[in-house]
Amino acid sequence: MNYAMIFYLLGRVVQVVGAMMAAPFIVSLVYSEKSGWYYLFCGIAMFIVGTLLTIKKPKKTAFYAKDGFVMTSLSWIVLSAAGALPFWLSGEIPSYTDALFECISGFTTTGASIVPAVEDLSKCTNFWRCFIQLIGGMGVLVFLLALLPLTGGRDLYIMKAESPGPSVGKLAPKVRQTAYYLYIIYFFLTAALFVSLIIAGMPVYDALCTALATTSTGGFGVKNDSLGGYSNTIQYIVAGFLFFAGLNYNFYFFLWTRRFKEAFSIEEIRAYAVAFWGAVVLIAINLLSAGTYGAEPAFRHAFFQVGSIMTTAGFSSVDFENWPALSRDIIICLMLVGGCAGSTSGGIKVSRIQIYVKMLARELSSLCHPKSVRVICMDGKRVSSDVLRSTMVFLAAYVVIFAVSVLLISLDGSDFTTDFTAVASALGNIGPGFSLVGPARNFAFFSDFSKAVLMFDMLAGRLELFPMLVLMSPATWRKN
Amino acid sequence: MNYAMIFYLLGRVVQVVGAMMAAPFIVSLVYSEKSGWYYLFCGIAMFIVGTLLTIKKPKKTAFYAKDGFVMTSLSWIVLSAAGALPFWLSGEIPSYTDALFECISGFTTTGASIVPAVEDLSKCTNFWRCFIQLIGGMGVLVFLLALLPLTGGRDLYIMKAESPGPSVGKLAPKVRQTAYYLYIIYFFLTAALFVSLIIAGMPVYDALCTALATTSTGGFGVKNDSLGGYSNTIQYIVAGFLFFAGLNYNFYFFLWTRRFKEAFSIEEIRAYAVAFWGAVVLIAINLLSAGTYGAEPAFRHAFFQVGSIMTTAGFSSVDFENWPALSRDIIICLMLVGGCAGSTSGGIKVSRIQIYVKMLARELSSLCHPKSVRVICMDGKRVSSDVLRSTMVFLAAYVVIFAVSVLLISLDGSDFTTDFTAVASALGNIGPGFSLVGPARNFAFFSDFSKAVLMFDMLAGRLELFPMLVLMSPATWRKN
Repeated sequence: MNYAMIFYLLGRVVQVVGAMMAAPFIVSLVYSEKSGWYYLFCGIAMFIVGTLLTIKKPKKTAFYAKDGFVMTSLSWIVLSAAGALPFWLSGEIPSYTDALFECISGFTTTGASIVPAVEDLSKCTNFWRCFIQLIGGMGVLVFLLALLPLTGGRDLYIMKAESPGPSVGKLAPKVRQTAYYLYIIYFFLTAALFVSLIIAGMPVYDALCTALATTSTGGFGVKNDSLGGYSNTIQYIVAGFLFFAGLNYNFYFFLWTRRFKEAFSIEEIRAYAVAFWGAVVLIAINLLSAGTYGAEPAFRHAFFQVGSIMTTAGFSSVDFENWPALSRDIIICLMLVGGCAGSTSGGIKVSRIQIYVKMLARELSSLCHPKSVRVICMDGKRVSSDVLRSTMVFLAAYVVIFAVSVLLISLDGSDFTTDFTAVASALGNIGPGFSLVGPARNFAFFSDFSKAVLMFDMLAGRLELFPMLVLMSPATWRKN
Repeated sequence: MNYAMIFYLLGRVVQVVGAMMAAPFIVSLVYSEKSGWYYLFCGIAMFIVGTLLTIKKPKKTAFYAKDGFVMTSLSWIVLSAAGALPFWLSGEIPSYTDALFECISGFTTTGASIVPAVEDLSKCTNFWRCFIQLIGGMGVLVFLLALLPLTGGRDLYIMKAESPGPSVGKLAPKVRQTAYYLYIIYFFLTAALFVSLIIAGMPVYDALCTALATTSTGGFGVKNDSLGGYSNTIQYIVAGFLFFAGLNYNFYFFLWTRRFKEAFSIEEIRAYAVAFWGAVVLIAINLLSAGTYGAEPAFRHAFFQVGSIMTTAGFSSVDFENWPALSRDIIICLMLVGGCAGSTSGGIKVSRIQIYVKMLARELSSLCHPKSVRVICMDGKRVSSDVLRSTMVFLAAYVVIFAVSVLLISLDGSDFTTDFTAVASALGNIGPGFSLVGPARNFAFFSDFSKAVLMFDMLAGRLELFPMLVLMSPATWRKN
């Protein structure tokens, strides 16, 4: 293990978190809030510590797969531990465990909160909650890579560990360039949403926070009722941008480079759109026929909630806890599916589900015709057996982590729906669940032990399981 | 497709069901019940129909994989449709859908009932419910194979389709001989339990039905409170035999042939024992610390319920719906795991879970050391890549069927726990679930549509998914 290099990169991470804290400080100046000073002091302290750790660049920059995974998981832990400090020091979140939970929830773009009433928080703290989602959405290390070439060409290992999906879609030959394109698209989407919300009449502060929480598919709100209190237009705009946020970023890159035909023929995009609008229609019909709402609100809430849950943002326009069973169960299924690979969303990802279905079809066909050989393709290209294997193992790991987490948090004595959807929500980086973790409630009632389990799940879900598992595997730490 | 051969074998199946109906008729003579005549008439009619269909043996007996799968699923459907007739004609179960549900539940050894009070049924009907579990437990076609060599050496395809587990453990070089050994072990276990129950003071009729429902891991009871009303000794005996029923039958074969070292070194047996007793201890401690019971009842109920659920029998010694959350969630996890491959139990099976864990460990190691090659072994033998692939696809199929089934039955408007555990119960061939399908309740309240979905799940679970999927796949019926 290249410890020198890992410490160096962790130092960079601390430095970046410190620098980022300037943003909430500026917000606090605008609203003359005292809490802002905690962000300033923490920020300066971290920047100094980070700078000291990175004064000397290690001589050996070689970086291998194992280092990449360990580095990625450690940096997300350090990131969250550091980012949680001002929540706690300012006294706005009195327990450090809770502050850490809130911060991990932000960075991993989960959006599950332990704050009973977010409107009681200061503006700068609410801004910090939303801002960390922006950073976490695309990946902190990808951000670093976009700025500086760090690891002598071995950046791909980090990108692999931090980017969502069964395989890394490299937009450009060089990792740094790919990271750069991704960030441009991401910022453009966020800015477009911000402007749209302002035009639709949202206050500037709310629009900024909502934009940060939407394109990152984070889902932290600045209001106690999430987006329920805003106008229908605003709800439609956010729902639309949620749909866009769940798309594979390759789509935008193809649009950008004017390869329209390629953009619209991405298989995952098609499946995502079909699943998305299928779910919207089914839920709208279900809500309408159950008499829950009239036609327009039924469509709007279905659209908004499918957007919010499938892209794993986790906003709510209404308390869907009271929806009929079919709608609720569709929502739970969407929690597991998630958005496209190569987007900021969480969950298992649409392309993985496509691979599972294709493998199942192949298996059935080869059971009937034992001698036939069939290849699995995505977008006309053969999926390598390595990707197939790792995609299947991902499912097994998801199920195992899921089951163990449900068992561990069931020690708190909640009902099965609470335990199941809390874990689905944490592992899929969504936010709300059902029953005791429903959209009108929060995660504060869990014991510290359960919170720790859910924090692990959020990090594991964001980093697509393997980096956290590698970090925890004894084999990683054994000397060769 | 060899249709002539499929019809011939279906004829044999109908003939066997007809012959089997002699058993409940004899029971009805003992208790002078009128219902018995329905079993006699149905039995004779089916025997005649079956005999007519099998008068002419097809010239071409060649049988391929596809035929094997189609044949297996069709014969289970025919079997259940025929077996359900006396339930319905006698008027004891007024709706044919319900009668079919009950019969599929019996043959697949699920043990989920739509009968509100089983004590109101006639003795012969209750006996028939228990008797079909005996036949279904080991497999109807395996039974046929043990009697007559049918398909010109291609029997393995049928055995593959009907036997549980990732790969068929052939005890003897010939399929027919293996089937014969399996049935000997099975009948021996059943007889031993029957005698033990009689010695423990159970009435003969109850002991017979309970023995049939235990070693088959079916779980139909003849009392409204399942086994709750019997003595502690009886509960311990049944729990012990449930543990034995969940063991891989290779274990017994090794004991029989005096290969003791091999018997106790089967990896799956060890993992099963660890999981079984681990769950018993955890639940007992949980029940004790929650003050639900004293020490002895806590251990007894934990032992009984783990035995009943993990081996997918589905008896209850107590209404575990009221247990603390951890115990309930352990029970739900055990519903998914199931017993050993090569036993009469359902679920995903212990050896598959072992393969998932081993594949996960290999994946983590190969992520860290991309160039290393590691082989996955069970019992010292390399697991072939075909078995690995098919085991992984099995999980994907399980998850997909699970999710779709939950969505479909959620149309009834029940809560999530009901929907989730009803599907887990049907697909794992268990019996009870939680909430509205808890041990003190039954499946009668579901709509006919939901019952159809659950019937499909029971058959799919019993035949390990692929045969039912092959039957339903359009590709199977396309002409080459």
